[in-house]
Amino acid sequence: MDFDIITPLLNNQSDEKIVLLVMDGLGGLPMNKGGLTELEAASTPNMDALAKESALGLHQGIRTGITPGSGPAHLSLFGYDPIKYQVGRGVLSALGIDFDLQKQDLAARGNMCTVDAEGRVIDRRAGRVGSEVTERLCALLNEKVNIPGVQIFTQVVKEYRFLLVVRGEGLKPNIEETDPQVVGEKPLVARALDKESEKAAEIVQEFVRQAGEILKDESPANMVMLRGFAQLPDWPMFPDAFGLKSIAIAMYPMYRGVAKLVGMDSPPAAASYEEEIDMLEKYWNDYDFFFVHIKKTDSYGEDGNFENKVKEIEKVDALLPRILALDPSVLIITGDHSTPCLMKRHSWHPVPTLLYSKRCRPDGIEQFGERACLRGGLGGRFPAYELMPLALANAGRLEKLGA
Amino acid sequence: MDFDIITPLLNNQSDEKIVLLVMDGLGGLPMNKGGLTELEAASTPNMDALAKESALGLHQGIRTGITPGSGPAHLSLFGYDPIKYQVGRGVLSALGIDFDLQKQDLAARGNMCTVDAEGRVIDRRAGRVGSEVTERLCALLNEKVNIPGVQIFTQVVKEYRFLLVVRGEGLKPNIEETDPQVVGEKPLVARALDKESEKAAEIVQEFVRQAGEILKDESPANMVMLRGFAQLPDWPMFPDAFGLKSIAIAMYPMYRGVAKLVGMDSPPAAASYEEEIDMLEKYWNDYDFFFVHIKKTDSYGEDGNFENKVKEIEKVDALLPRILALDPSVLIITGDHSTPCLMKRHSWHPVPTLLYSKRCRPDGIEQFGERACLRGGLGGRFPAYELMPLALANAGRLEKLGA
Repeated sequence: MDFDIITPLLNNQSDEKIVLLVMDGLGGLPMNKGGLTELEAASTPNMDALAKESALGLHQGIRTGITPGSGPAHLSLFGYDPIKYQVGRGVLSALGIDFDLQKQDLAARGNMCTVDAEGRVIDRRAGRVGSEVTERLCALLNEKVNIPGVQIFTQVVKEYRFLLVVRGEGLKPNIEETDPQVVGEKPLVARALDKESEKAAEIVQEFVRQAGEILKDESPANMVMLRGFAQLPDWPMFPDAFGLKSIAIAMYPMYRGVAKLVGMDSPPAAASYEEEIDMLEKYWNDYDFFFVHIKKTDSYGEDGNFENKVKEIEKVDALLPRILALDPSVLIITGDHSTPCLMKRHSWHPVPTLLYSKRCRPDGIEQFGERACLRGGLGGRFPAYELMPLALANAGRLEKLGA
Repeated sequence: MDFDIITPLLNNQSDEKIVLLVMDGLGGLPMNKGGLTELEAASTPNMDALAKESALGLHQGIRTGITPGSGPAHLSLFGYDPIKYQVGRGVLSALGIDFDLQKQDLAARGNMCTVDAEGRVIDRRAGRVGSEVTERLCALLNEKVNIPGVQIFTQVVKEYRFLLVVRGEGLKPNIEETDPQVVGEKPLVARALDKESEKAAEIVQEFVRQAGEILKDESPANMVMLRGFAQLPDWPMFPDAFGLKSIAIAMYPMYRGVAKLVGMDSPPAAASYEEEIDMLEKYWNDYDFFFVHIKKTDSYGEDGNFENKVKEIEKVDALLPRILALDPSVLIITGDHSTPCLMKRHSWHPVPTLLYSKRCRPDGIEQFGERACLRGGLGGRFPAYELMPLALANAGRLEKLGA
């Protein structure tokens, strides 16, 4: 949906509140022929009762057949077409580990690697060294790298992967990646691909040189490679574009990060679902829009643990009365993508969605599940980024277009 | 839908006729939990019988969540994506009062206002003077304003609002609005915003000057303010684009106006539904496409009068045999947007649509209503501007694309 269409229609008189409850990886598949999906198998009396008064459907985060990663999936739920709004990978790395990236920072993904005496790469992942090794080496780099005029931060992501952030003035990210992609070659030079990026490229080259010096006696991780140079994007911010004071309530950094990327506030991570609902209650009067993220439905999907994914859905259902007691004007219950236990990974399958409001047109469907949602008024494969305009409309927050 | 795709495929051999019957604001909502919508509650034996042989669905005039005004809603039904085809507000004003706007005319919206002795605006709406006052003042302006080389027309719209039309050669509408938007300031100068609009801007400035002179002893309306300068758009015309000799049959000027905007003929307004069907019969042999507009379904929606909206739908149902007796090749029954009695205003909810033709693929649904249409082959949220290509196809008026 175009912000150009929506933003001029905002009605700032409405103070009605919107809750977006995302069960990560909610969509599923039957494990056996003729069986039920995870959501269909779950006992969800509260969601089923709400479904009767709601508009149902299934959304696609990106495009038909495209499996969304967590970043694009959430951007789409937030109203950003993820094909139009793509985030650089360096920035995604920063979001994933809760690094507080600033407007002018340059971020990149790093690999620890192994080079031979001539500097040729002999292992692009340094024997997949563990996070504790990379953490120690990052501390070393943070201590010893010294480049006048900029600050350098490195931080472990996972195993041999780390984040590099260069903080300074006038840095632009159009820089060649240094990973040669094959062993037996030296790391490539981080050349500037345009004039604006020359300053940053020189700094990155100097970082690589010093890192090689500092790590040269380590083993097996004695060098670094960099890719995915990126900066925070210059997008319309969610609170301005939609006229909503907005907060993200989540247990994991990735989701708080994506929400912060579009300008939502995000208090420190909650430790449990109950604590997430506590926070929803606590901040209820201070915000218009509440993004509440539930992680473990996805984790059990990735594990292929059907029984536990069902149980997580049932736990969320049991929390629903506390959310409804706050009397939100609009409540959307959905996932960011499907993670069928059968596949043990994210998938392209459309994601069950329930939109409740006093102004929605109920479909008269008595269950919240994949097949039930197919019969709903939102349609079986609607773009996830249409949910936000619909939420605004249902909250009385959009004027009509034209006389 | 793109005219570039449709127009080259036109088959001019077909003389089959298409009727588009629009019940304004048709779509609705239940007034109570578990209840029926207006259309579902109405007893519509003729439409229900037709539904069995028809393709059903629900359309959206603009985009998901966007509530259409009457102008964009009808343009979409006529095959024009209303985001791509936007009409200037001055032109909309002219349409709304049945002013016969010509190709080169410059139109603007006017307000009567009150200025103090120094010319500063002290009331932007002149105490909301009634239509009869504005009518008298417009007559005065029409009589006394004298600008060589152009004709000036003013006409009351409603209360303090009026239409200004400048008729002459070489006028362009890119002119600054004169309403300062706050009291205590003088009206702004109608400056040209590009070189082509300089001539028109000078004429408008002279009109404002003379209007100030002519009205200076009136009270409270002693000055005018202008905004929404616009001209008839240079769009593909409906009869050419779709190869259809076309007529609009309606009771209110706004709807005849939008139809004329896209090049349809429009005889004088009918006085009743029966008279509209009389006109349909009268002109049956002279046209290919008939747009028949029913107003009161929307009016009762805006009033929140569920019972009367239901009755209006039933009245239209009772007229259906007269339309079917003409044996149209294609009959579309729909609304331009939803106007749920529950909300007393236009809404974004998709609009029930029935497309009957001998060549349609019947959905086997036995009722014409919101939930029934959800199960139909046209889908639950199809763009209204796809109806015209579908109507042409069903009338045997489109060739295939490619060999």
